[in-house]
Amino acid sequence: MNGRVMNMRQLISLVTLGVDDLARSRRFYVDGFGWKPVFEAPHIVFYQMNGLVFSTWLRTALDEETKRSSPVKSAGFTLAHSVESRGQVQPILDHLAKFGGRILRPASEPPHGGMRGLVADPDEHAWEIAWNPAWPIDAQGRVRFGT
Amino acid sequence: MNGRVMNMRQLISLVTLGVDDLARSRRFYVDGFGWKPVFEAPHIVFYQMNGLVFSTWLRTALDEETKRSSPVKSAGFTLAHSVESRGQVQPILDHLAKFGGRILRPASEPPHGGMRGLVADPDEHAWEIAWNPAWPIDAQGRVRFGT
Repeated sequence: MNGRVMNMRQLISLVTLGVDDLARSRRFYVDGFGWKPVFEAPHIVFYQMNGLVFSTWLRTALDEETKRSSPVKSAGFTLAHSVESRGQVQPILDHLAKFGGRILRPASEPPHGGMRGLVADPDEHAWEIAWNPAWPIDAQGRVRFGT
Repeated sequence: MNGRVMNMRQLISLVTLGVDDLARSRRFYVDGFGWKPVFEAPHIVFYQMNGLVFSTWLRTALDEETKRSSPVKSAGFTLAHSVESRGQVQPILDHLAKFGGRILRPASEPPHGGMRGLVADPDEHAWEIAWNPAWPIDAQGRVRFGT
């Protein structure tokens, strides 16, 4: 029996990042990205995204949830945020750097075209800021893979 | 100038996980979750998800992209996959464990209600398998925060 038989949807409902200092993280996401929380508590902040939910959670609480001890040694991961034009990538990286971000890679053109740069949030979670004209985004913010 | 002035949408376009062995990872996601890739190359697999794209990328290539060396010490993160009923959580954890997953936490009821368990993928990336009746999911797979 494979997963298709089990009828699992191609669905990510929530992305949660562990953070050491919720106020420091909130500054990056709320003041830097300009995102509005949908729910806040002393240990967690939730944001309604494009068809999924994003949250930042105190690492101690996340460790208790996952039954693991952080820091977790990870093969790494990135989240990407798409912007509407080539010219927005570097200004947004610079802007996020003023709110606790650390630029990992300045804006440049990747091999497949477009423009992208990378910034780490205050907890070293990497965000790619990308202009990718091959991936259409509809009015509801739904992103579609394109080549 | 804050992010709202910069007009950044509340948008995650792509979630990328670094992996050590693409075939091993593919088995977990394609045969375990039953997800169908939308694009495959020797170093990367892309999946079209609910309004965003998911990819697994060889860690060496991801390191080159982010200009960091893995393993990255991280405060941890989780991705969540929602299922349609309470009774699906444990069978799906057991199923994924047969395709390279490692159960971190068996199904149980969290303080806010519903049911959830956690499983690590073959690269130790944690997935929460969740039944959460408070978060509605529409026919297009768009998940909405609810309380």
